[in-house]
Amino acid sequence: MKYVIYLFFLVVSFSALSKGCDGSLATGDMGIVMERATGSILVVEHSTDSILCRITGLGDLSHASAVYSRDEAYAYIFARDGGLSKVDIRSGKIVKRVIQAGNSIGGAISQSGKLIAVSNYEPGGVNIFDSESLKLIRRIPAPINNSKNFSKTVGLVDIPGEQFVYSAFEANDLYKVDMSNIEKPVVKRLENIGRQPYDGLVSSDGRYYIAGLFGEDGLVMVDLWKKPVKAVRILSEYGKGEKKFPVYKMPHLEGWAMNREHAFLPAIGQKQLLVVDVNNWQEKERINLIANPVFAMAQPDGRRIWVNFAYPDNQWLQVIDSLTMKVIKTIEAGKGVLHMEFTPRGEKVWVSVRDKNEIHIYDTESMGRLKVLKAKSPSGIFFTSRAHKIGL
Amino acid sequence: MKYVIYLFFLVVSFSALSKGCDGSLATGDMGIVMERATGSILVVEHSTDSILCRITGLGDLSHASAVYSRDEAYAYIFARDGGLSKVDIRSGKIVKRVIQAGNSIGGAISQSGKLIAVSNYEPGGVNIFDSESLKLIRRIPAPINNSKNFSKTVGLVDIPGEQFVYSAFEANDLYKVDMSNIEKPVVKRLENIGRQPYDGLVSSDGRYYIAGLFGEDGLVMVDLWKKPVKAVRILSEYGKGEKKFPVYKMPHLEGWAMNREHAFLPAIGQKQLLVVDVNNWQEKERINLIANPVFAMAQPDGRRIWVNFAYPDNQWLQVIDSLTMKVIKTIEAGKGVLHMEFTPRGEKVWVSVRDKNEIHIYDTESMGRLKVLKAKSPSGIFFTSRAHKIGL
Repeated sequence: MKYVIYLFFLVVSFSALSKGCDGSLATGDMGIVMERATGSILVVEHSTDSILCRITGLGDLSHASAVYSRDEAYAYIFARDGGLSKVDIRSGKIVKRVIQAGNSIGGAISQSGKLIAVSNYEPGGVNIFDSESLKLIRRIPAPINNSKNFSKTVGLVDIPGEQFVYSAFEANDLYKVDMSNIEKPVVKRLENIGRQPYDGLVSSDGRYYIAGLFGEDGLVMVDLWKKPVKAVRILSEYGKGEKKFPVYKMPHLEGWAMNREHAFLPAIGQKQLLVVDVNNWQEKERINLIANPVFAMAQPDGRRIWVNFAYPDNQWLQVIDSLTMKVIKTIEAGKGVLHMEFTPRGEKVWVSVRDKNEIHIYDTESMGRLKVLKAKSPSGIFFTSRAHKIGL
Repeated sequence: MKYVIYLFFLVVSFSALSKGCDGSLATGDMGIVMERATGSILVVEHSTDSILCRITGLGDLSHASAVYSRDEAYAYIFARDGGLSKVDIRSGKIVKRVIQAGNSIGGAISQSGKLIAVSNYEPGGVNIFDSESLKLIRRIPAPINNSKNFSKTVGLVDIPGEQFVYSAFEANDLYKVDMSNIEKPVVKRLENIGRQPYDGLVSSDGRYYIAGLFGEDGLVMVDLWKKPVKAVRILSEYGKGEKKFPVYKMPHLEGWAMNREHAFLPAIGQKQLLVVDVNNWQEKERINLIANPVFAMAQPDGRRIWVNFAYPDNQWLQVIDSLTMKVIKTIEAGKGVLHMEFTPRGEKVWVSVRDKNEIHIYDTESMGRLKVLKAKSPSGIFFTSRAHKIGL
């Protein structure tokens, strides 16, 4: 009987992978899923929700992320081990791969699509590459107290005008780098923005950059449309609480939900989501949750917010109505819910459930599960529509 | 000498078209340009700003528009003569073509990508098609006073949940059609919304539908997130003015600019742009322009607004800073500036200059012209990134 079941799973797995990456498909509905334990990715499509092919040999993909070329033909994959890979998602082949640092944490692609920036932990700083050849164009150091020790860089995003913004963890600095002339980068450094910025994000219009602080309460915000560029503290109560619960995982700022009126922030060490009025950056209310949130992500229409949670409660998903601010659905997906990605116009959400080796696909309207796909320890999910967005 | 010049232009034109549509390219950076006088379209790409191929035989393309399949492989073209065409932009071939009415004015694609809706003038109403086969699924009538005469339909948009919203010009009605069960469409009709709604748009989150009124002053707005769905009058002064100038062309509502805080509306018959606070839908200020505006379009980052103008002043473009509300640039592009389309992340804008038979490409940062492409009476420009957006 065991063999029959085993055979059944083999067939399922085989048929799931049978479409292949033969270069014949248009890529507007494609994406990739990181398989963190095996250094592989799945190339997927979300029109009929299927797996097309698996690509192996991409290094340490724990916490890995990806951006796309502007034609949506190539994914650039930022592995944790410093590997930067350019993958042709149509043919399913690695086109180029460089080890550009010892330890890195994500990257960004410039507005024109010509430059790839990578945020490094070891050595610190940011490296900038030609997106065509993956040749190193520039190293931008992030010195700690003007020493030769480079700080880890975090919260790296692109903004219009071939610019990148990021924060330096040990240096307490914020950088804005203008690469519109690659021969003469213009590096703007804001010092003492707050202790240990640990992650950052930019609003979808590229205007507000916000960094979370590990070393103190509150957040730091920069209005990038105003000159001179200036770091302002906001939400000074953020991080504080009547009673702190143990923090197993820092909330991701990239996963902040922002719609027209509100930002929804995971409260650090609290079973709550903070609702912030984006007009004045003041806290407006709090929404009680089942556990400590990690990602709070708004559907593309901003109508509902989907939240996942930190260990040991990472089997849950909760859905919040952004008008009533109420939890309208609690879903037990299975242990290790690590990431969510909405289809571009938001009719579906893909959820990686690591410990079950599954990707769950939900209808965002009914919040019912539509399909399950097999994957090996899936984590980050990245659809090609990201190619067309600012700040991802 | 004349022959040499003629030969030169032939070579330019040939080289511009030489890349071809051989099916080998990824489509994330592609688009189409309507050539209104010749019933043809150009397939283009905006990474290196070139023309790939020309497709002919598409009918009357004056005022034609297009939407894209969710994989960005196919363009659906809504011709003025009622023709609905499905075009493979990779191969440059017309896959299917139906004449579905005598006179039509645009369409929309449902959130799932499975349904195409077309807005008709003659006979009126809306027709809904299967996007794969272009088979008619449903005719939705728009009766005038419950008679058998159908109203022209206008301002057709998609909203989440396989729904379409549009207005009925002679019937003074607004429709919301839920096609999530194609066997049982749920048609919601709001009566007496205002006299002669002539165009409509929906905010990028699919929340606010706004229709312009030809028969009276003011606009009508529906908050689609609130139940029951209710039409509310806003901006009752809109359309009035101390002194009305002749209106050669009704401003397009689809071209309204909306960023986080403001909507920028072409004032009817006035050389002005109205700035409206989107939090309360009240007029905040007016910006004086060189002529009567037609389209006012925000860059993807909302930072600047680009405006074109009505005949006889349609050689101009003006650019407005959305922070200072000042005109920062006036460009004389040439007679017949009909449409603008921004690249997905906003670094460039393509402008059709009909009477010069040219497409002009500008850098949005410097506002300088980067390139000119030849086209036959170009009008609407539509890039594939529209596939990933709500309400287009």
